[in-house]
Amino acid sequence: MQQKRVTLEEIAQAAGVSRATVSLVVRKSPLVAGHTRERVEQIMAQMDYVRDIGAARLRNRSSQTIGVIVPNLVNSFFTEFLSGVEEVMARDDRVVLLANSHDDPRRQDEILQRFRGHGVDGVILCPAVGTGPELPGRIAGWGMPLVQALREVGPPTDFAGADYITAVGLAMRHLVEQGHRRVAFLSVSARTSAREERLTGYARALAETGVEDAGIVEADLTWEGAAQSAAQILALHTRPDAVLCFNDVLAAGLMAGLRRAGCEPGRDLAVVGLDDLPLAELTYPPLTSVAMDAPGIGRKAARLLARRLADDAAPPERDIVVPRLVVRDSSPQKV
Amino acid sequence: MQQKRVTLEEIAQAAGVSRATVSLVVRKSPLVAGHTRERVEQIMAQMDYVRDIGAARLRNRSSQTIGVIVPNLVNSFFTEFLSGVEEVMARDDRVVLLANSHDDPRRQDEILQRFRGHGVDGVILCPAVGTGPELPGRIAGWGMPLVQALREVGPPTDFAGADYITAVGLAMRHLVEQGHRRVAFLSVSARTSAREERLTGYARALAETGVEDAGIVEADLTWEGAAQSAAQILALHTRPDAVLCFNDVLAAGLMAGLRRAGCEPGRDLAVVGLDDLPLAELTYPPLTSVAMDAPGIGRKAARLLARRLADDAAPPERDIVVPRLVVRDSSPQKV
Repeated sequence: MQQKRVTLEEIAQAAGVSRATVSLVVRKSPLVAGHTRERVEQIMAQMDYVRDIGAARLRNRSSQTIGVIVPNLVNSFFTEFLSGVEEVMARDDRVVLLANSHDDPRRQDEILQRFRGHGVDGVILCPAVGTGPELPGRIAGWGMPLVQALREVGPPTDFAGADYITAVGLAMRHLVEQGHRRVAFLSVSARTSAREERLTGYARALAETGVEDAGIVEADLTWEGAAQSAAQILALHTRPDAVLCFNDVLAAGLMAGLRRAGCEPGRDLAVVGLDDLPLAELTYPPLTSVAMDAPGIGRKAARLLARRLADDAAPPERDIVVPRLVVRDSSPQKV
Repeated sequence: MQQKRVTLEEIAQAAGVSRATVSLVVRKSPLVAGHTRERVEQIMAQMDYVRDIGAARLRNRSSQTIGVIVPNLVNSFFTEFLSGVEEVMARDDRVVLLANSHDDPRRQDEILQRFRGHGVDGVILCPAVGTGPELPGRIAGWGMPLVQALREVGPPTDFAGADYITAVGLAMRHLVEQGHRRVAFLSVSARTSAREERLTGYARALAETGVEDAGIVEADLTWEGAAQSAAQILALHTRPDAVLCFNDVLAAGLMAGLRRAGCEPGRDLAVVGLDDLPLAELTYPPLTSVAMDAPGIGRKAARLLARRLADDAAPPERDIVVPRLVVRDSSPQKV
């Protein structure tokens, strides 16, 4: 099945240039004149040259490939995040390989080993639920540059995320301004740093605003799980007049579940999400949410990794998006 | 940065077994007794053994990694599809690397070259808009096993998809049963085999049912693009009483756009989607759609690729999901 690969020498001969020139073209060096580059690239295409990443890696220790590991693709926040990573990496002529850990640390380990075996230049990781704090140290021991994003474990590494505590505070103050006094929090059940911070934000905002805590309800991160939580929310001893949701997926699912139960979201019970996914405009009523700029976090993570690839001795850096409230119809003034 | 790698010999010595036994454990051979396997695996973990995929590839020509290229991640059909691919591949102990071509044939080429350089065992490809019919032949020339999915170009290869023509027919007959006589079609603008088949299905269904064609409107595959198409649909010379949409993303966006324009989807204008994404249950009103079983198509694609890896001389095979109508509230009986 395997073909003989075209060599740089063969391309050089066909193009009438030196092997060194072909090598510079392959590495996209600015030292080669435009018309020479074009001729060589044309001949490379004609002769179906494929760069042997394995050999290139041994020479210059770069595969121009980076790995991204996300814990799920149900939440389109991760696909938005990924688009930001890809935007920056494409500019640097790097290809992004994505893998889904399904929030399973074992599968995550296997992916990391595979990335390591393939010689990716570095990894952007949103750690799976249950990832031990020692993982970043292990990855560092392999000499593999790492940026954590959205969630983090262990001692500080490069990290890109959003200020969840402020985000929850913005949502809560909005609810208070709209006249709400009893708020419930609909959380994901999975234990992550993102959950911890949002719950910390909730506790602080309760203390700051004097709002009554109607309770914390947990749901699986699926549309259906969120819809089913409506019954629990409506059965809370202290009936809330508003529900603040861990993210927009839960908020959208909850609104569908409330409607099935005969409770009109917005009118009978205010609902606020976090993340401001594109779907927030499409739900009915359109969902009030807090924008975290997922593509922006992706771009930040990509830039942190590019910086780390250029300088592996730089101290760890954090780049955090400032959240922004987006008011829509799901949280009207209380009448 | 690079550490010295632990060798099989060193693991064998530490575990008190032969190098051949360690090699069998690495390759997960059933020939090794359970307790031996466990001891060797424990020592491999302690000594931080990482399998060198490059070397393994040279030995047994398998990286146990397959590549999947999708044209976007806006449409969650692709993430559902991907979950099916991963389910089957995980059973075979294969890791899935995903890349997004953004419907750009150049980026797709670059990804393929990168996959080729890394020595993935095979590729599942949903071809980008504008992919030339020669691509499958080029990939075959590299000796890289290929399965096309959801869209296809060129002469027959292994292919997994859904019967879009039947799907559109199911939707149209449902609309006729509900009393609708003037139907518009909201299509994506991007030219793909999927679009061609759905439009063929529309033309056939018009002919079979005698329904009046109110027109074909095109939108970009984004929520906002679909929402904006509402104005065009409401301005059609023949005012439709129902809109059949290319997919659920367009249908959900259209319903939001109709509502902004003061037209109540369902009540004033029936809307039907195709794909039956999870969001179809969450829109308001819940969306009538035609289920294509995206995870099922993913599983079929993965099985076709596994079969191709085992037998590269087998004739190309097609595995097609039979669609199923799911009636919800967006297409009530016409009054």
